[in-house]
Amino acid sequence: MNLHDLIRDLREPTSTKIVLVVADGLGGLAREVGGYTELESANTPNLDACAREGVCGLSTPVLPGITPGSGPGHLGLFGYDPLEYKIGRGVLEALGINFAVGQRDVAVRGNFCTLDDKGDIIDRRAGRPSTERCVAMCKKLATIKVPGVEVFVEPVREHRFVVVFRADNLGDKVNDTDPQQVGAAPLLAVGEDDPSQHTAKAVNQFVAEAGRVLKNDAPTNMVTLRGFARYPKIATMQDVYGLKAACIAVYPMYKGLARLVGMDVVEAGGTLAEQVDTLKRLWDKYDFFFLHYKYTDSTGEDGDFEAKVTKIEQLDAEIPRIRSNNPDVLIVTGDHSTPSRLKSHSWHPVPTLLVAKSCRPDGTVSFGESSCLCGGLGQFEAKYLMTLAMAHAGRLGKYGA
Amino acid sequence: MNLHDLIRDLREPTSTKIVLVVADGLGGLAREVGGYTELESANTPNLDACAREGVCGLSTPVLPGITPGSGPGHLGLFGYDPLEYKIGRGVLEALGINFAVGQRDVAVRGNFCTLDDKGDIIDRRAGRPSTERCVAMCKKLATIKVPGVEVFVEPVREHRFVVVFRADNLGDKVNDTDPQQVGAAPLLAVGEDDPSQHTAKAVNQFVAEAGRVLKNDAPTNMVTLRGFARYPKIATMQDVYGLKAACIAVYPMYKGLARLVGMDVVEAGGTLAEQVDTLKRLWDKYDFFFLHYKYTDSTGEDGDFEAKVTKIEQLDAEIPRIRSNNPDVLIVTGDHSTPSRLKSHSWHPVPTLLVAKSCRPDGTVSFGESSCLCGGLGQFEAKYLMTLAMAHAGRLGKYGA
Repeated sequence: MNLHDLIRDLREPTSTKIVLVVADGLGGLAREVGGYTELESANTPNLDACAREGVCGLSTPVLPGITPGSGPGHLGLFGYDPLEYKIGRGVLEALGINFAVGQRDVAVRGNFCTLDDKGDIIDRRAGRPSTERCVAMCKKLATIKVPGVEVFVEPVREHRFVVVFRADNLGDKVNDTDPQQVGAAPLLAVGEDDPSQHTAKAVNQFVAEAGRVLKNDAPTNMVTLRGFARYPKIATMQDVYGLKAACIAVYPMYKGLARLVGMDVVEAGGTLAEQVDTLKRLWDKYDFFFLHYKYTDSTGEDGDFEAKVTKIEQLDAEIPRIRSNNPDVLIVTGDHSTPSRLKSHSWHPVPTLLVAKSCRPDGTVSFGESSCLCGGLGQFEAKYLMTLAMAHAGRLGKYGA
Repeated sequence: MNLHDLIRDLREPTSTKIVLVVADGLGGLAREVGGYTELESANTPNLDACAREGVCGLSTPVLPGITPGSGPGHLGLFGYDPLEYKIGRGVLEALGINFAVGQRDVAVRGNFCTLDDKGDIIDRRAGRPSTERCVAMCKKLATIKVPGVEVFVEPVREHRFVVVFRADNLGDKVNDTDPQQVGAAPLLAVGEDDPSQHTAKAVNQFVAEAGRVLKNDAPTNMVTLRGFARYPKIATMQDVYGLKAACIAVYPMYKGLARLVGMDVVEAGGTLAEQVDTLKRLWDKYDFFFLHYKYTDSTGEDGDFEAKVTKIEQLDAEIPRIRSNNPDVLIVTGDHSTPSRLKSHSWHPVPTLLVAKSCRPDGTVSFGESSCLCGGLGQFEAKYLMTLAMAHAGRLGKYGA
């Protein structure tokens, strides 16, 4: 049986509230054998109190050994099997710049590149132009008209931008036009099926036109396109869980992922304190709050152990204000690990805590990777976290008589 | 690969014996943070000895966060995926009164209700009649004849009874006749496919006749029917495991569930001591014994922490007599948790112990929720328990060369 169908069958309406705090890239690694991770090094009296009162464990974002991107990492936390629900690169890129991708859209990531006189690519990133130049070039591209298809061009940064093709019946089974090497011309787009041929035709018209529009703009005198992706078919959290859900995030990517599963993306402010203010202000309006905290990931990506520790301590300091609203279920976790030692996302299981009245406390007295190992949640697939949240919120009835 | 096919392929005949003691609703919760659960509070020297000699863990009856009824809970313990094998309400209700549902049967739960002069329902439970009246009314209903279909009517209690329709080729895709509201007439039964139309026709004849038979018996002057269910197609434990299995249970529901998977339901007596006597008496006749102990659940449902503790201690006291027969594998577990604090079944993982010569003991020195957390069985889906039992009983060969 499908997990979402099961939840739809079992769910019961109540007015309980669930708060999911995602500290992006929360899990880490010690700097040396026998040392402490970032989370274990941080002074976190409030998270430790949660660990004592609640139940801890380690979540596996996708499968053991699989490192997730932000998309699969968050979908898992929202209860959507990240191996079943795939968000294509183009759509993720569009979500990342807060472009409201819709059902009729095929989105794709674009790169500016440099062509020589023969039309072969000599620089796949066009010498990494400034973001200002990227913006200017995108303005030029935005003037291109393709008959029967609406086209949107939006800058990302440096050589990167997003193109969205909008029309009825566009497919996304279209090859990348980037040949992945220099000394070759950009590839023609070819569609694998009728709707994708429809897309490919529009793509080839757009690219040909881009060549004309940019011909005097070397090194940014051509574009390649990678990762054609349709808006995915995905049930909303309201539909699956019966939850009215709010996203309190600062960065566009996470707003986009939340919008994808039907959350209301609310104006959150820019600081964590403002995000918590937002949570408190909207407390009566929603059943479910997704609060996204970015800086545990970005400091990890920077390889800055001490900074990640500090960011964790800053999160800890806001926990009492979140708890003062008495959420029926409070979860603190991450979408994946980002050990500062690796300077990247990793596959390591993610420390997770859940506090609710119906918890079975597990002897865990601090929140950290090692202590979570003996936690009552055990090691579990992230996609079950929402089922647990629903159960602890008194929102799931009994399966079978 | 299907787990049952795998077991069929690998199983090897031996004369080893497996005892599965199911303490219904065994898992619990502490009364306060830092406190002990019912099982942890109980004085259980014999179970603790088992935990020391054997291996412990926590079983997840269905999936994390999913609270099972008795049907899914037991099917999982018997090694049948509770999400794959579903027992319809009508069949469970029939099993619960020890009606021997068979392959040609469609069973359904009946309610007496009250109709007004216009034929609309004014009380969906007919004022909750006494069970004596329920029995008398069922005797009247049992006189109804439906051409070509055998009909059995059996009282449950108060307004509830069971009807079983028996004939070749009856389907169960039939709507409930209960309109779920007062002020409306009972619904006609409609079948979704040919076999179910066959059933629906018999149902409508039965209900019309019931209205005539009961017309002077207000407030029990009509019936509604809910949860039509065929006897499920389910392989026997003999077929899957090659085990000759005996059920030693006191309550009808568990006897029914055991009969469903092909166990012999033996005369068990009424007390736990008598159940253990039965086990010892039949020791040479069976390979597998399912001993069901109800009172850990019923005291939990009553919200009586102390009584549940006492019931656990009474179970503990019988363990030496069970062990004196030297079962090759002894398992003590529950079909789900029933924390007395929640007064209901719950989703919390269930303490499980397994004692066998081939165990890898795990440092667990007492049997309780917290100690099981660090046990060698880890947290596992209940449906794998029988595979472990078979392995420890020396009944499974090697997979692959």
